[in-house]
Amino acid sequence: MNHLLIIGGSDAGISAALRARELDRSVDITVVLADNFPNFSICGLPFYLSGEVSDWQNLAHRTIAELADHGIRLLLNHTARVVDPANKVVTIDEPERKSLKLQYDRLVIATGAVPIAPPIPGLHLQGVYSLRTMADSFAVYRHLERADTRSVVILGSGYIGMEMADALTLRDLDVTVVGRSSTIFKTVDAQLGLMVEDELRRHGVKVAAGVAVERISQNGRRLVVSGTQGLRIEADMVLVSAGVVPSTELARSAGIGMGYQGAIGVNRRMETNVSDIYSAGDCVETWHCLLKQSTYLPLGTTAHKQGRVAGENAVGGNREFAGSLGTQVVKIFDLAVARTGLRDTEADGAGFQPRTVELTAFDHKVYYPGAHPLRIRITGDHQTGLLLGAQIVGHYKAEVAKRIDIFATALFHGMHVEDLNDLDLSYTPPLGSPWDPVQMSAQKWMRSE
Amino acid sequence: MNHLLIIGGSDAGISAALRARELDRSVDITVVLADNFPNFSICGLPFYLSGEVSDWQNLAHRTIAELADHGIRLLLNHTARVVDPANKVVTIDEPERKSLKLQYDRLVIATGAVPIAPPIPGLHLQGVYSLRTMADSFAVYRHLERADTRSVVILGSGYIGMEMADALTLRDLDVTVVGRSSTIFKTVDAQLGLMVEDELRRHGVKVAAGVAVERISQNGRRLVVSGTQGLRIEADMVLVSAGVVPSTELARSAGIGMGYQGAIGVNRRMETNVSDIYSAGDCVETWHCLLKQSTYLPLGTTAHKQGRVAGENAVGGNREFAGSLGTQVVKIFDLAVARTGLRDTEADGAGFQPRTVELTAFDHKVYYPGAHPLRIRITGDHQTGLLLGAQIVGHYKAEVAKRIDIFATALFHGMHVEDLNDLDLSYTPPLGSPWDPVQMSAQKWMRSE
Repeated sequence: MNHLLIIGGSDAGISAALRARELDRSVDITVVLADNFPNFSICGLPFYLSGEVSDWQNLAHRTIAELADHGIRLLLNHTARVVDPANKVVTIDEPERKSLKLQYDRLVIATGAVPIAPPIPGLHLQGVYSLRTMADSFAVYRHLERADTRSVVILGSGYIGMEMADALTLRDLDVTVVGRSSTIFKTVDAQLGLMVEDELRRHGVKVAAGVAVERISQNGRRLVVSGTQGLRIEADMVLVSAGVVPSTELARSAGIGMGYQGAIGVNRRMETNVSDIYSAGDCVETWHCLLKQSTYLPLGTTAHKQGRVAGENAVGGNREFAGSLGTQVVKIFDLAVARTGLRDTEADGAGFQPRTVELTAFDHKVYYPGAHPLRIRITGDHQTGLLLGAQIVGHYKAEVAKRIDIFATALFHGMHVEDLNDLDLSYTPPLGSPWDPVQMSAQKWMRSE
Repeated sequence: MNHLLIIGGSDAGISAALRARELDRSVDITVVLADNFPNFSICGLPFYLSGEVSDWQNLAHRTIAELADHGIRLLLNHTARVVDPANKVVTIDEPERKSLKLQYDRLVIATGAVPIAPPIPGLHLQGVYSLRTMADSFAVYRHLERADTRSVVILGSGYIGMEMADALTLRDLDVTVVGRSSTIFKTVDAQLGLMVEDELRRHGVKVAAGVAVERISQNGRRLVVSGTQGLRIEADMVLVSAGVVPSTELARSAGIGMGYQGAIGVNRRMETNVSDIYSAGDCVETWHCLLKQSTYLPLGTTAHKQGRVAGENAVGGNREFAGSLGTQVVKIFDLAVARTGLRDTEADGAGFQPRTVELTAFDHKVYYPGAHPLRIRITGDHQTGLLLGAQIVGHYKAEVAKRIDIFATALFHGMHVEDLNDLDLSYTPPLGSPWDPVQMSAQKWMRSE
């Protein structure tokens, strides 16, 4: 093992490189990336565009110099085109359009994902953007800086859509979110989605839910978004955030088999079905701890973990990816919205008998100033009592994120709902209750039997 | 089973009553308590004295009316004196000094703890207080309201001492903390104790650590605290908070066997060695999950859990107390200080081979405004890799409390340090990192091998 070649310089690729280096001081490590922004925090783009992060360079988890210090060779602005697994060679486009062939002993494909382009006319008009790369980000930023940019329509009410609604409102823009589902932010139950909708409206964002966009057209210098239910909005800019699909062309060139919904197929060692080729991050299918099967859950946390496993195994280790629970949190104005595990509908499909109970409880003793209500939805299996999932919405300073992590840690260990009451959790009146709201929700679930 | 008699109306007693009622709608439940403040949040007293809680009545977890609605009979201002287990009768002093005999089928002793009176002269001088009951609290409050109360000496640098230093500073009093140990707040390692000391000083509190108080004396209307190292402080008030000891007289009257360090001996069903008598809360020994033996850890969270178990078993249930990890958090000015599990010295004594590593990491991505450093000390067993404990100090709005709870949940399941990296924890740049600081500390521990 002399040369570890990694295609992709974002979370999964860089994690693989760092882990490999940590375990093997002598291996040559090359990371090939299509732009010159290795190890950038894609999740941070909304906060750059909002103005909260003043210098985009701060979005780098590590600088190029820091990566070089780890003895990682970076090929910036290089795009890998074809893998020849028989000869262990990757053909790569150099910046000057010349072509380079790189030999590898082990290869990690971490090509990430690309935004979904919804099948509507007008996506290529000036002023229509998606948000995935630093280049996207700079283009949006330039447009936002123009004095005549006053209104934006966001297509899609997922994570990026919600964060961008927050970010652009902070810039004093007139923002409208258009979503296809009947309640927005459908990664959580509709009851909580309505809370998010209220929070958006409270901050002046207009919301059109249950609407299908049919086209984007131009009206002079402005754009017009039109769709079902008489939707017609004029705006200076349109942001398309309709989710992502795995970027798999390179893997296909190597004859690698695909897995769940067209993502690259991998086992839990992050090996593809082609020898000496690993894959990790937003381009691969992801093992789900509860479903006990692969799914597609492109998340930065998962990309880091999978990259780390791929890097470790690529230099001779023997580690398995433990799996995902789909744990997620997002800040939307003053709210944190978090989830882990399965919701009713998801659990139903997987053969469970889910029951979900909702509780509203304060984050700390209400007699101490500044208590915020938390809305917790807890899902368990009616028959076995197994904890299946949880969702929490509350003020973003009310420890929503780390409370969902208590649930996530419990789920990781296959806890039963009832046993959450046995957890020895911390308490002081300014920060909690003798029974944490996590446990109160478990008690309510038990009583609802 | 007709009559469940519970002695003690604080956390453990009321939890037992509520759980018994939840499971058995017909049983008669009587709670006997020595004052008329059932179900008050003792942990909330400092916040009443600071002025943050404007009405002391808000400190009640539930009102008397709410408890009555559950069909719980309360005997206020009644003090149980003697238990006759052969005849299943408890002799109780009524308010008017008459005596009452109450029959029971099952008895729960939840008599709590009393403050330690250090062996020094002067404890009974006017202006010297301890803080445990509502009556204590009212007495302190009245003294604080006097215009000539300008300075306070706090003896003891544990939880209550720290919280009262914060509370009284908020009232613009001149506060000095005197502690016997070389660094204050010795429930955490000295490195973190020094941070607490800095935080106190930053808010104007004077700290004398490593000093033994020898006497309290009077100088006109003022008090003088003197001790080793030339300690001599004049003040208008002295607060003694030197810890608590279990209140066991009633149990002794029943011939119940004592356990760890003089606390009431119980099994994990919260049964004493006398038939049909249960005990729970600050008066009993507490099973420790990691030590696999009983210890004394009087905490409100534990009292709730033990009381719940006692109440359940008293009406025919069959539940075991899962055990404590000593999980605790306290807010001291702007800091939250939290711990769970064992520290080096404690683990050493229990046959482990502990190694502790410290990490400073930001609570969220530093590019997003408002990031706070967290200092995390993680302890694992050198030989087996088993997680043994963790301590965190950081801003109290930086999710310190629920991060210690992630560790606590991991400890509950006997996780290895390395496996913390497998946990699927939530992330968004304003609230975390792709690897949570909890996981970063685990990674640092692994690298330190």
